Amino acid sequence: MTTTPSSKDDRHIATDLVARMREGERHAIARVLTELERTTPHTMNLLEALVPELGGAPVIGITGPPGAGKSTLVNALIRHWREHDRRVGVIAVDPASPISGGAILGDRIRMTAALEDDGVFVRSLSSGGHLGGLSPAAVRIIDGLDAADYDPVLIETVGTGQSEIDVAEVSDVRVVISAPGLGDGIQAMKSGLLEIADILVVNKADQRGAEQTRQQLMAALSIRSGERRDVPVLMTTATDGSGVAELAAAVDERASLAQQTPVDDRRQRRARYLITHAATAWVRKALADQPPDQLRQLAGDVLSGHCTALEAAQRLFQFSKEK
Amino acid sequence: MTTTPSSKDDRHIATDLVARMREGERHAIARVLTELERTTPHTMNLLEALVPELGGAPVIGITGPPGAGKSTLVNALIRHWREHDRRVGVIAVDPASPISGGAILGDRIRMTAALEDDGVFVRSLSSGGHLGGLSPAAVRIIDGLDAADYDPVLIETVGTGQSEIDVAEVSDVRVVISAPGLGDGIQAMKSGLLEIADILVVNKADQRGAEQTRQQLMAALSIRSGERRDVPVLMTTATDGSGVAELAAAVDERASLAQQTPVDDRRQRRARYLITHAATAWVRKALADQPPDQLRQLAGDVLSGHCTALEAAQRLFQFSKEK
Repeated sequence: MTTTPSSKDDRHIATDLVARMREGERHAIARVLTELERTTPHTMNLLEALVPELGGAPVIGITGPPGAGKSTLVNALIRHWREHDRRVGVIAVDPASPISGGAILGDRIRMTAALEDDGVFVRSLSSGGHLGGLSPAAVRIIDGLDAADYDPVLIETVGTGQSEIDVAEVSDVRVVISAPGLGDGIQAMKSGLLEIADILVVNKADQRGAEQTRQQLMAALSIRSGERRDVPVLMTTATDGSGVAELAAAVDERASLAQQTPVDDRRQRRARYLITHAATAWVRKALADQPPDQLRQLAGDVLSGHCTALEAAQRLFQFSKEK
Repeated sequence: MTTTPSSKDDRHIATDLVARMREGERHAIARVLTELERTTPHTMNLLEALVPELGGAPVIGITGPPGAGKSTLVNALIRHWREHDRRVGVIAVDPASPISGGAILGDRIRMTAALEDDGVFVRSLSSGGHLGGLSPAAVRIIDGLDAADYDPVLIETVGTGQSEIDVAEVSDVRVVISAPGLGDGIQAMKSGLLEIADILVVNKADQRGAEQTRQQLMAALSIRSGERRDVPVLMTTATDGSGVAELAAAVDERASLAQQTPVDDRRQRRARYLITHAATAWVRKALADQPPDQLRQLAGDVLSGHCTALEAAQRLFQFSKEK
């Protein structure tokens, strides 16, 4: 990333672009988001110009196992908020993009959301593969949509494990969507998603087994260890809109609570996520690049039980407890 | 882990236990695996006694999205191998266990596999939550089952992202199971699982859409970038056994290829996975434990674009490119 001092002209261009974005000029919004995504030389100027305009829009993370009807429900939520004159920003994180060419999720939303509606802005992002996590771009685009007066900002991903956890890490409110008949899906949800959910949804509530799914989720919540949080389990049928108003109300309520935390602190949390992710990616790469001979002795010690894997890692990276 | 020198008696107990395990004494096998899982003071002695007995059984990783019928297909595979007098070891990694109490996968396999059959040994393991990865225990239990003459050793997990990647990392042959009608399931598979699969399976081949699913997978494989590998896409119906013999043959063929790599090198690869995992877990924890004030400046620099997340991580951990 460039750190050369920017000229007055460059700063002016950024300020002007942000001003036009704030006036709702769709082309300006798209350009700002693209610059934020690309990390161009203008990015720093843009970020500087953006910060005073941040409104602190809540970030609503929406995840869930495949087949739960996420895209349809997100569309129904968008329609609901639009009817109440809310401007909705959407970040669709598509972990499939290396192969599919990306934008599957975003396309689905765009197909149904009115393209000409200035009150909705959808941006598709690749997660960069299963080890890639969310890019810094995703975190900056949250700021971009917020500064462009979109409120709430939704961030959605298909349920593929790591990308769900990543989305949860940067969100203020975490909605986890399930549906009856997903088989192992409920089981899979229990593994990690239940722990992070602020709101659980059983979509396709008109289908057989919906009530049973709800009860399974309630039971799983009740035996969950650790602090007791108040996590509602809501029923929706995205296709006919049932329960969508109630879900939107629950999201808004949780969002108000989250907004009691200053926007700066919420942005800090997102930056810490990025730093953590970059650090772990670096460690993985450093180990993968390690000459096999250097690792052989350590790996042998781990296999024979002479040291733990953590002790081996600490020797390799000279980690210390003091740090 | 203890590193106190073990007495002659302790070593004798370990050697004796391994000998009884090698004679097929079921109680001895169970005790060895439990000791390996627990990291007791005996673990090191046991590992020492085990290593000369390793046969180099191939480790077959079996993963796939929820609802693909993995457990049923694993049972069908076990039956097939049993009919050919193969002894099958199974490690069922259950990412759900903090809530469900664990052992969901293992129970499903046990229900159908003949409990009294000494030719099958099933061990359930928790993955320790979504950030926990596979435990060192899982890797040691591979050695335990191998030394007890189980060949192949299957390692299965429900499809929840990280645990699938973990299973792939320690396996010699990676089988990824899908099925028609999983909706986003295929999409989700494309994100990471296709990249790691040695064999793809469309289970529930008797259902509508099976051929379409097969063609989607073939298409996704053909546009995959990077080295071209020969990944077969097989059709099975686990419930009536169709295609199971062909799948077993394909697994055996890939296993023979994998066994050209000496068992020591394959164990080394598994140890490197453990070290990598321990290192990244350490980094995560160190960052989570960091006093907020120390991170505030760095996080601010990341948000404003003054440094990248990686640069921030490097400053924090004093990583260097030289290392």
